[in-house]
Amino acid sequence: MRDTLGGKGANLAEMARAGIPVPPGFTVSTQVCNMYLSGGNRVPDEVEAEMAAKLAQLEADMGKKLGDDENPLLLSVRSGSKFSMPGMMDTILNLGLNDEATEGLARLSGKQEFALDCYRRFIMMFGDVVMDVSKSEFEEILEEIKEKFGAENDMDLTATQLQEVVAAFKAHYKQAKGSDFPQDAHEQLKLARDAVFRSWDNPRANHYRRMHDIPHDLGTAVNVQAMVFGNLGETSATGVGFTRDPATGSNEFYGEFLLNAQGEDVVAGIRTPRPIAELSSVLPEAYEELRSITDRLEKHYRDVQDFEFTIEEGKLFMLQTRNGKRTGAAAVKFAVDMVAEGLIDDREAVMRVEPQHLDQLLHPVIEPGSKGTLTTLTVGLPASPGAAVGRIVFSADDAVEEAGQGNPVVLVRAETTPEDIHGMEAARGILTSRGGMTSHAAVVARGMGSPCVAGAGEVNVDSRARKVSCNGHELSAGDWISIDGSTGEVFAGQASTIDPDPTSGEFARFMEFVDKHRKARVRANAETPRDARAARTFGAEGIGLCRTEHMFFEPERIEHVRQMILAEDAETRAAALSKLLPMQRQDFVELFEVMDGYPVIVRTLDPPLHEFLPKREELMVQVAQLEASGADETKRQEIAALLERVEELHEFNPMLGHRGCRLGITFPEITAMQARAIFEAAVECARKGVNAIPEVMIPLVGNHKELAHQKKIVVDTAEQVLAESGQKVHYKVGTMIEVPRGALTADEIARHAEFFSFGTNDLTQTTFGFSRDDSGNFIQPYLEQGILEDDPFQVLDSTGVGQLIQIALEKGRATRPGLEVGICGEHGGEPKSVTFCVRSGLNYVSCSPYRVPIARLAAAQAEITA
Amino acid sequence: MRDTLGGKGANLAEMARAGIPVPPGFTVSTQVCNMYLSGGNRVPDEVEAEMAAKLAQLEADMGKKLGDDENPLLLSVRSGSKFSMPGMMDTILNLGLNDEATEGLARLSGKQEFALDCYRRFIMMFGDVVMDVSKSEFEEILEEIKEKFGAENDMDLTATQLQEVVAAFKAHYKQAKGSDFPQDAHEQLKLARDAVFRSWDNPRANHYRRMHDIPHDLGTAVNVQAMVFGNLGETSATGVGFTRDPATGSNEFYGEFLLNAQGEDVVAGIRTPRPIAELSSVLPEAYEELRSITDRLEKHYRDVQDFEFTIEEGKLFMLQTRNGKRTGAAAVKFAVDMVAEGLIDDREAVMRVEPQHLDQLLHPVIEPGSKGTLTTLTVGLPASPGAAVGRIVFSADDAVEEAGQGNPVVLVRAETTPEDIHGMEAARGILTSRGGMTSHAAVVARGMGSPCVAGAGEVNVDSRARKVSCNGHELSAGDWISIDGSTGEVFAGQASTIDPDPTSGEFARFMEFVDKHRKARVRANAETPRDARAARTFGAEGIGLCRTEHMFFEPERIEHVRQMILAEDAETRAAALSKLLPMQRQDFVELFEVMDGYPVIVRTLDPPLHEFLPKREELMVQVAQLEASGADETKRQEIAALLERVEELHEFNPMLGHRGCRLGITFPEITAMQARAIFEAAVECARKGVNAIPEVMIPLVGNHKELAHQKKIVVDTAEQVLAESGQKVHYKVGTMIEVPRGALTADEIARHAEFFSFGTNDLTQTTFGFSRDDSGNFIQPYLEQGILEDDPFQVLDSTGVGQLIQIALEKGRATRPGLEVGICGEHGGEPKSVTFCVRSGLNYVSCSPYRVPIARLAAAQAEITA
Repeated sequence: MRDTLGGKGANLAEMARAGIPVPPGFTVSTQVCNMYLSGGNRVPDEVEAEMAAKLAQLEADMGKKLGDDENPLLLSVRSGSKFSMPGMMDTILNLGLNDEATEGLARLSGKQEFALDCYRRFIMMFGDVVMDVSKSEFEEILEEIKEKFGAENDMDLTATQLQEVVAAFKAHYKQAKGSDFPQDAHEQLKLARDAVFRSWDNPRANHYRRMHDIPHDLGTAVNVQAMVFGNLGETSATGVGFTRDPATGSNEFYGEFLLNAQGEDVVAGIRTPRPIAELSSVLPEAYEELRSITDRLEKHYRDVQDFEFTIEEGKLFMLQTRNGKRTGAAAVKFAVDMVAEGLIDDREAVMRVEPQHLDQLLHPVIEPGSKGTLTTLTVGLPASPGAAVGRIVFSADDAVEEAGQGNPVVLVRAETTPEDIHGMEAARGILTSRGGMTSHAAVVARGMGSPCVAGAGEVNVDSRARKVSCNGHELSAGDWISIDGSTGEVFAGQASTIDPDPTSGEFARFMEFVDKHRKARVRANAETPRDARAARTFGAEGIGLCRTEHMFFEPERIEHVRQMILAEDAETRAAALSKLLPMQRQDFVELFEVMDGYPVIVRTLDPPLHEFLPKREELMVQVAQLEASGADETKRQEIAALLERVEELHEFNPMLGHRGCRLGITFPEITAMQARAIFEAAVECARKGVNAIPEVMIPLVGNHKELAHQKKIVVDTAEQVLAESGQKVHYKVGTMIEVPRGALTADEIARHAEFFSFGTNDLTQTTFGFSRDDSGNFIQPYLEQGILEDDPFQVLDSTGVGQLIQIALEKGRATRPGLEVGICGEHGGEPKSVTFCVRSGLNYVSCSPYRVPIARLAAAQAEITA
Repeated sequence: MRDTLGGKGANLAEMARAGIPVPPGFTVSTQVCNMYLSGGNRVPDEVEAEMAAKLAQLEADMGKKLGDDENPLLLSVRSGSKFSMPGMMDTILNLGLNDEATEGLARLSGKQEFALDCYRRFIMMFGDVVMDVSKSEFEEILEEIKEKFGAENDMDLTATQLQEVVAAFKAHYKQAKGSDFPQDAHEQLKLARDAVFRSWDNPRANHYRRMHDIPHDLGTAVNVQAMVFGNLGETSATGVGFTRDPATGSNEFYGEFLLNAQGEDVVAGIRTPRPIAELSSVLPEAYEELRSITDRLEKHYRDVQDFEFTIEEGKLFMLQTRNGKRTGAAAVKFAVDMVAEGLIDDREAVMRVEPQHLDQLLHPVIEPGSKGTLTTLTVGLPASPGAAVGRIVFSADDAVEEAGQGNPVVLVRAETTPEDIHGMEAARGILTSRGGMTSHAAVVARGMGSPCVAGAGEVNVDSRARKVSCNGHELSAGDWISIDGSTGEVFAGQASTIDPDPTSGEFARFMEFVDKHRKARVRANAETPRDARAARTFGAEGIGLCRTEHMFFEPERIEHVRQMILAEDAETRAAALSKLLPMQRQDFVELFEVMDGYPVIVRTLDPPLHEFLPKREELMVQVAQLEASGADETKRQEIAALLERVEELHEFNPMLGHRGCRLGITFPEITAMQARAIFEAAVECARKGVNAIPEVMIPLVGNHKELAHQKKIVVDTAEQVLAESGQKVHYKVGTMIEVPRGALTADEIARHAEFFSFGTNDLTQTTFGFSRDDSGNFIQPYLEQGILEDDPFQVLDSTGVGQLIQIALEKGRATRPGLEVGICGEHGGEPKSVTFCVRSGLNYVSCSPYRVPIARLAAAQAEITA
């Protein structure tokens, strides 16, 4: 009944039916919310009548009357939608009080302080939540009065003092709203109910729903219950808890309580709550009953419960129970433990962990206590998860040098380029002031599994002065800095971190469940033996994308690469290529060794050539400086000549430029060299008894003739190398589908392609016409305005890009039934995208090594729920 | 029978059947060519047998025998495919001669010189065409001998001297080939036939077929005919001609001849041929017969004939007839005249002119004689047709200034940017050293109808020194230069040009035929009243694309535009926009006035904002220079501050960046200002009685919510302006479909869009992943290697981009039946693309004003042949 009653209402009803003590009451259904919102903010008369009848029933049950002077019924009014939603208004307690009823309550309970305490709480809550009078203003008034009377806690105030508080609150309310605080309890109830309804539609709630894919038309229910009082003295209490520890997952009763308090006091932080274990000595009977009830609840719901309770003069009432939110570690442990306890089966266990949650288990985190001891500099984009702590360096070379001396470093730059790769590898983490979630720094860092905070716009990086300033703080090279790539936080100073243990018993056991229910394969995007080993550790079943260009940026190679590019004739180019050949071959030998028996997809050179040369603007500035100084004419000419070639290679839109197979077609000798390196490496492995399975992938194909051209070079080279060696190597040649035309002509392309791999980063760029490097300026406003539901570079756009994937699949398999198809864009490690891929019929997904477990889980869940 | 016999063979057979004198012979069919090429370069035995039988028949008919010593049959062997194809081997004359047969021929004709003349011609032709011995080497030998004997013409050589020529030719042949010149006449025939077959597959022929979309599997026929001799003395002659003048189209018999000559002499240029009219006095009977026969041929084929003939001792033989190639002007005049003469109907007339041919009629051309008097500097890309002559300027400002003083100027730049627009408008033509057929310069020039030669890579432009150098020539600002945008030629000096008259009688009459058969509408892309007027003159039925950003670049506006961009708060931005408003309004008023009663599609702001700011690199260099000199710190700071903002706006791939509706969404006030300008202008027009029909088009929509957002602004503004004025204006709001996602989600987009216009420039860029500014480096090799058949920026890619167009049409009209759909990319003026659009069901195409007639013709032809 969660659709109608909301989560809270349904659970309350279920508890009541099970004989668990809950305060009596009723629930106004979500349909009424939708009627109210669509009906010009009016509740239909027949619903009002029904509600009045329910209220009368409640009054009869309780022997009290709402608004009665002598024996007033007080109510708690709480919202409750199908999904728990912060941002929506939540709770109003003590509803039904007015001046007379307060006196009545005082008389009845014999506790004037208690009655006045309830009234002042109610005025503030009602004012704040229902009537939009800021809570902080009430709190200020309360503080003033407490100060005036030297009262430390709210509970220290005497009746007279509380009367003053109530009077001041009412005066403040009147000043703010222009009318007296409503004395009619029935009117209070209607106002509160309608405010709950309206809060469904407030911007924060809308934003939250967009963030969490919750439909906008569910509406919220309103739970009306008789108040029970935790503030009736020292045998009364209120508290919250979990049936197990939601942080660590350990099977320990967990929670806090306050004596003589109402619910909001526990979270408000004014008084420090006590650990729930202490309740066993203070109110042992109530504690035992609570343990027994919550045990029942956990067994009943077969999941860890997050509960609220109140003890009124020794009697326990359950106010709420729901499945508890949990950390990734706890989620995994709960799932594994509950299978062992026979509470759930392994299929259900797989569904109990959110794929994204696993991310927390795979990276170091900043020790929670440590953050408070550091200076927070700023919050950037959480671009690659995990914490990194190190000394600041401003260049890739410095990073390599410092790291070589055993110093942990964090690379701080305005932005990174492919030339920084060696420095990024050497650094513990990366901080950039420019670029988005898919900037170079972010993509490479995620690929490496290194923490990265990107686009921290408040950070000013002055690389020349080797200084960084941010919000009034200034740090220099060598200073300690700590970043949290999971939250985007940046701290000055040296944080303590906790290393996770992804091979722990529960994790490994959980992944066994996952793999039992998974059919789609998961590969990793990796170039280095280090990454490949990580990928295998995380369960990758092969490499789905090895970007050979990353190998070109190694310091000892870039010179040869530049010679190759700057070569004015075929001979010089051939000489440079022949120097690169043995290096590339050795790379592949190592990769094949790590991946013994698993396929390795090697992509031929992809990026435009100018990426391997110095930057155009920098050369222009150098030339201008040398011209102005007139000092070194030889050097000026040298740089001017280099600039000329860089200018020739300069592109307005490099993303759409001379790259991918376009390079391989205009410079076939590059493809030939790479093919030779791959197959010579495979042959070398074969001789050692290593089973290398190379799959050569041609990038950026939009036309089947491009693939045919490149495939011929690869196959000719392979056959030649294999014939010379006498070894047998099983290999394939396939292509990336990463421009729309590739998808649209997949039937033709599949004539030559033995496999497809969707390059969804580029396919997203071209399908949307969005440059991922430049999209920060408009994707953020688009998300805020609801034009986009997700950043399409993070979550695969199933409507547009997905349509092209489906067209390509259909056309490709029409030509070549059984064509193997995968995805190797960043989306391969994003759960929603993995779900789309698995349901569309892709054979595998490939992602960063550190996201392999996430992809495995997402794939299993997609298959379970298919 | 052209498929089997080739064009030449079919026409010869047709003439023979019609009783027209042609030398007897037979044709080896195209099937034999295909058998030969696919059968390992062998002709099947049964075909050899059949050919031997045909040869025997010919020998019997002629009473001569091939290779006979006494009475030798000589043959002409000519290739002939379905379509006339330069690059394929053509003709071998006098085949059958050897040492003995030459003596026999001499005895038989009584003319030893004639026989030796035939033999030396045969050795050279056979050597050159069949055996690959360079013709020029034979020619050198002949020249040496002529010089030795003081002979001026070939015909002056005596028999003895000719014997020496023959001996020297044979010796040269032996030296080159390592064997004697073949004496067996039947062997000669087979070798010649097979060489013709093989020539079908040579690279030049392949290239030509690709260029002209001729299938590669047609094959060529071989025509074998008995020789007739134009070189049998002064009553013999040979010549070529056209039934009407193929240059001007006038109905005048046109051609040239040589007495005592063989066919190749007429074109070889050794002797100067005589105008054909003179034949009437030299050989009056043969002339009269030629006139009568060619008249019959023209009527028979109902088209102008291009013919070859030989007169052997007074007797006329027709060697060939075919439809004559013609200039654009002639094509139009032929078509119109032939309708008047009742030879063809207007439907056929429309099919007789190639749409591209009209281009020649719409632009000034360099007077053919004038080119010889100039220094050719280089040949660049023919980026925008027409000739331009002017003094060199190196900056847009100089262009405006010089032109203002009445000096014609040509703007010479490495590349142009949107800031050069005013200079491009002022200049007669544009020459750039960088960029391709769709570079900024090329696109804008075509839009303006200004001649442009782009990407002339040999031209070095030094704007600072105001000098340009090219292939050893150096020119300065103010020097005369002439460019031919139709051929890409660049000349130093001042060429004479001929202005075309597009409103001439024949042209206008022809376009009447065109419009009679046309249903699809043709609009023009135009911003300025000048362009709009040109568009109307050329028959545009509205404006399909008015790019409002061009209006932003006007010198007096760019300052306000920059203020708007640099504004740090909404107020400053509003102030700048309010200054732009009246200027934009006035633009639209003028445009609506010119287009009174026709729809005007106005596109809201499209380019990224940094296009309106100074260039980043230039600012970087300036800062570096000012830093180095230390002279002007205030200026350095000022420029550094500007640079900072430019850096913020800098994009790696501006094509995929913050532009189009993305701008309108992040800066809604820009869209609002533009909408206000449009509707205030429409209201102003309405008050004057001018019928303005604005259609507001939102660019770069890939998501229906983007359109909904922008449409709301436009409609709200429109309704407000119209309500205030009390005027009625009919308007629409639609969108460009120019990113793949727009096409793929056209069903959703059509919910908001009242029309679609395909922006095929951008759609081609994103579908292929090609930046049109950067594609020069790979599109050219792709065309050369046959990976692409056409440059997709010139000819719409019907396979890929076309598929998206069809998806969008289908989805769009499923949502909104009758949705009006057009195209406004450059392809709207390209005939093959127009054909695709018309057949796909688009309602209109829109193109540069100067291409409107071409589009009209292409649309009519597409509908006639549908």
